[in-house]
Amino acid sequence: MKEIKSISALAACFSQLPGVGRKTALRYAYAVVDMSEEQVDGFCVALNDVKDSVRFCSVCGNFTDAEVCDLCRTRKSDKICVVAYPKDVAAIEKSGAFDGAYHVLHGTLSPMSGRTPDDLNIKSLMARLDGVDEVIVATNPDVEGEATAVYLARLIKPMGIKVTRIAQGISMGSELEYADAVTLSQALGRRTLL
Amino acid sequence: MKEIKSISALAACFSQLPGVGRKTALRYAYAVVDMSEEQVDGFCVALNDVKDSVRFCSVCGNFTDAEVCDLCRTRKSDKICVVAYPKDVAAIEKSGAFDGAYHVLHGTLSPMSGRTPDDLNIKSLMARLDGVDEVIVATNPDVEGEATAVYLARLIKPMGIKVTRIAQGISMGSELEYADAVTLSQALGRRTLL
Repeated sequence: MKEIKSISALAACFSQLPGVGRKTALRYAYAVVDMSEEQVDGFCVALNDVKDSVRFCSVCGNFTDAEVCDLCRTRKSDKICVVAYPKDVAAIEKSGAFDGAYHVLHGTLSPMSGRTPDDLNIKSLMARLDGVDEVIVATNPDVEGEATAVYLARLIKPMGIKVTRIAQGISMGSELEYADAVTLSQALGRRTLL
Repeated sequence: MKEIKSISALAACFSQLPGVGRKTALRYAYAVVDMSEEQVDGFCVALNDVKDSVRFCSVCGNFTDAEVCDLCRTRKSDKICVVAYPKDVAAIEKSGAFDGAYHVLHGTLSPMSGRTPDDLNIKSLMARLDGVDEVIVATNPDVEGEATAVYLARLIKPMGIKVTRIAQGISMGSELEYADAVTLSQALGRRTLL
């Protein structure tokens, strides 16, 4: 069956979204046919609203629709939790375990993909370290996340500020049997006294 | 974390798409923040293009951007394959096993959800049966699909037209062990001579 041109074009747009392949994109495009005129208009307005209103917080780099985000305005900033992406802020906030401020790097160091410290939101982090007691590096526990943590520690520790890293070990509710070797050896090496 | 208003609004739009829940919709909405101005504009144009140009074929009810769809214009119509939805046409076309014309009902009979013959695209099917040898009912092998098939057979057979149903049985490549009881008993009951 020859595909309808406008459907293919819309499917191409949908397939720019994360995790959307060709088949899903086509399914979405066909669903738009069934939408009302008002729904499609509303969709367009919403798309443009996001593009126009959402920017990065000038202090921490998280998403916001103001100059400075809610979290920066309301939280004490003596503890700063450094994460790679805005979605990591959302994950930590959901846990409710942290009540300090955040800083979003928008990536991690990666010599392989050519991401150097200049590509990350590090300058603005250094600019806000006055009066900060502790910087918690909450990047992912992978090679790039670890490299970023080590880099930040070397940069910040000489300023007399404590730099910490989120703990690594066995996840809550997981089974030893299925844990990978590196995680297991980390969990053993960093065992704590009961 | 308080959610950004325009992000929530866009996520609500995305969650109207089939199979998109709240979490996926939010992920899509945040992805739009990273898109360029041009990409978002292109998205809007594509959405409106689909809404403006795609309609249902006046003969068979399938999606088209013309008055009559490609399949209706190019295929012989002595055999008509009746399906519930446009996506079923796409599935059969992909198999390459049918070279006749189609008719899309836009649903199946369902007394439970109040879908009667008047709600389906049946009138236009009756109007195109002149010179037709065979009507193949390719609705899904479930209660509603079967009911629709029986209804159509009662309606069309008296006109001297052959009405057939797609075969039911064990799927190619599947394992007997995992087949459900109804499918197995159908496969046994309709066994063919080797």
